[in-house]
Amino acid sequence: MERRIEVLCEELKNQKMDASFINTKENFFYLTGFLTDPHERLLGLLVFPNKETVAVLPAMEKAQLEEAGFHGTIVAYEDHEDPWKKLKGHLQGVHTIGIEEEHLSYGRAKSLLALLEDHQVKDVTDILNRQRVIKDEKEIEMMREAAALADEGVEAGVAALSEGVTEMEVLATIEFEMKKRGVREMSFSTMVLFGEKAGHPHGNPGDRILKKGDLVLFDLGVVWKGYTSDITRTVAFGEVDAKQREIYETVRSAEEASLKLSKPGTRIGNLDQVARDIITEAGYGDYFPHRIGHGLGINVHEFPSMSHLNDDVLQVGMTYTIEPGIYDPAVGGVRIEDDVLVTEDGYETLTKTTKELRIIEK
Amino acid sequence: MERRIEVLCEELKNQKMDASFINTKENFFYLTGFLTDPHERLLGLLVFPNKETVAVLPAMEKAQLEEAGFHGTIVAYEDHEDPWKKLKGHLQGVHTIGIEEEHLSYGRAKSLLALLEDHQVKDVTDILNRQRVIKDEKEIEMMREAAALADEGVEAGVAALSEGVTEMEVLATIEFEMKKRGVREMSFSTMVLFGEKAGHPHGNPGDRILKKGDLVLFDLGVVWKGYTSDITRTVAFGEVDAKQREIYETVRSAEEASLKLSKPGTRIGNLDQVARDIITEAGYGDYFPHRIGHGLGINVHEFPSMSHLNDDVLQVGMTYTIEPGIYDPAVGGVRIEDDVLVTEDGYETLTKTTKELRIIEK
Repeated sequence: MERRIEVLCEELKNQKMDASFINTKENFFYLTGFLTDPHERLLGLLVFPNKETVAVLPAMEKAQLEEAGFHGTIVAYEDHEDPWKKLKGHLQGVHTIGIEEEHLSYGRAKSLLALLEDHQVKDVTDILNRQRVIKDEKEIEMMREAAALADEGVEAGVAALSEGVTEMEVLATIEFEMKKRGVREMSFSTMVLFGEKAGHPHGNPGDRILKKGDLVLFDLGVVWKGYTSDITRTVAFGEVDAKQREIYETVRSAEEASLKLSKPGTRIGNLDQVARDIITEAGYGDYFPHRIGHGLGINVHEFPSMSHLNDDVLQVGMTYTIEPGIYDPAVGGVRIEDDVLVTEDGYETLTKTTKELRIIEK
Repeated sequence: MERRIEVLCEELKNQKMDASFINTKENFFYLTGFLTDPHERLLGLLVFPNKETVAVLPAMEKAQLEEAGFHGTIVAYEDHEDPWKKLKGHLQGVHTIGIEEEHLSYGRAKSLLALLEDHQVKDVTDILNRQRVIKDEKEIEMMREAAALADEGVEAGVAALSEGVTEMEVLATIEFEMKKRGVREMSFSTMVLFGEKAGHPHGNPGDRILKKGDLVLFDLGVVWKGYTSDITRTVAFGEVDAKQREIYETVRSAEEASLKLSKPGTRIGNLDQVARDIITEAGYGDYFPHRIGHGLGINVHEFPSMSHLNDDVLQVGMTYTIEPGIYDPAVGGVRIEDDVLVTEDGYETLTKTTKELRIIEK
């Protein structure tokens, strides 16, 4: 963690900032190793280019921050104290300050900036995004575990399919199996969609009953040791028709093509484009309304955006999702999604569940 | 919903604001009836003292906002459009603007304020808090349903107790039963704590195995049609000793005393004080480190704060939790929590599970 703070210090120096105030719990965790949700209480990290880092957090969490190995100064406050007053002394001489503009509230920014004699505000979000985008061995290990749990979630869902069951019953079974394995939190609201319900990219699980000939879409992930996973698989419940198969195989080809481009040096936008071209040539271009994927790590949606407009190139250690889909309100929907790690030679999918079309007979 | 917007307009006029920009999904829901999570996309409502309300939201959600019955102007935007540009024309003549200071990000506030020629910023949070604090019949109906589901969650947890089971297994069973009933989201991270694990007010469920003589603490709630519930019950697994009983009965007396004060006109702080006095007289004052409760509604923690310092008085239609606890690391913990509605005559608990000490023999 100390190395991560050093890298940030170096960048603050390059960008001529006197300090940065980090207040999202994700970046706090990334820089200190301590994962906590302070709810409405203030949690933050003052990082300086040439001075010891200062953490501010509720007094009851001080010991845990120390246990996580944080060696900087800790400003701990009780509920009746004003944390900003306790920070004032640490901000002497600070004029140019970096904040997370889209995450620090207007009210807190006002309190922070009132502590400075004069100020210029910069956004540090991009610095942290670019630092977090390359995962180290330890992070990859946790993401592997998170992905393996997501694979087990899909299997739990497949095992729960039977004629007449509802989407919510299958969803409940998946989350039950995850919780039993120690998962405290899913990484987003679990999706289980049957038949035409999957024909909209933003459907909601409900009372729809499973029937023979339905395609079933599972989209789920977990938070595990602070890292996330996100998998989608679509399976057939009983025999499906030629149209459903054609859609399935088109999505599968699109996903494979996008995965194959995953290697150091590839322009990120090309991963979207290659999949989009395949889907468009098959006549389903209007039914693939979203980008090919998103960065994955501490947040389930993080930097980089895997859109066709992204001119950045892939580097070893990047992790993201690849998730093409076709949503035809008349037929249903198919999406296939893997969690991908860029390696020296190309890529590895962290999610391992088969992508052969599975026909579930029960 | 239109009546709610009218009440807000009136207050904006009183406080001499030219407009307010509401951007939390909770207040957007309260004022429009449309509940949605826009994630990183902009969702907002421009409310003026004397002009039609303007909603801004992603184009794909426009139809749902209309279906919810919203009659104002809708500014819908596609992902490639800048929503702020589309709002500019609606902000002519606005100087004094109210925002939710603790929720609107610095970056968004910057974009909003850049649209005004000159500006003065006020905070509208308190206006909305005070408006939302009195629930109407429709809201109370949804809170009753949410509370009934929480009661069922406790029963599911009690039914899952058996020697050797872990906290996480019981937690998984509770959430499974809730999801099967159509609950998409718990209102907070479910707590199931055994024995000494409940001896800390912020324990985390894990691998602790259930043993005869343990007290078991359940704390859970659901989100239902946009409204929340929050219940705590503590039960005994097998016979417990005199000390455990004494703690249980002390907490129960404290909760009953606090409930009895619940009626129109009571100073809110007195609800905390009466419970604190009982716990202190019994010798456990140091083991009750938190306030007696919190407001409950669209948010699981909302206005008012039920602390001993609160000088506001109770009014008909207020809803909040009463949840005294004693946490002794050597013995374990007991907390009893109900969701309370203030009525003309006094109060009603929306949660109905018994508070007699239950001895679970299995």
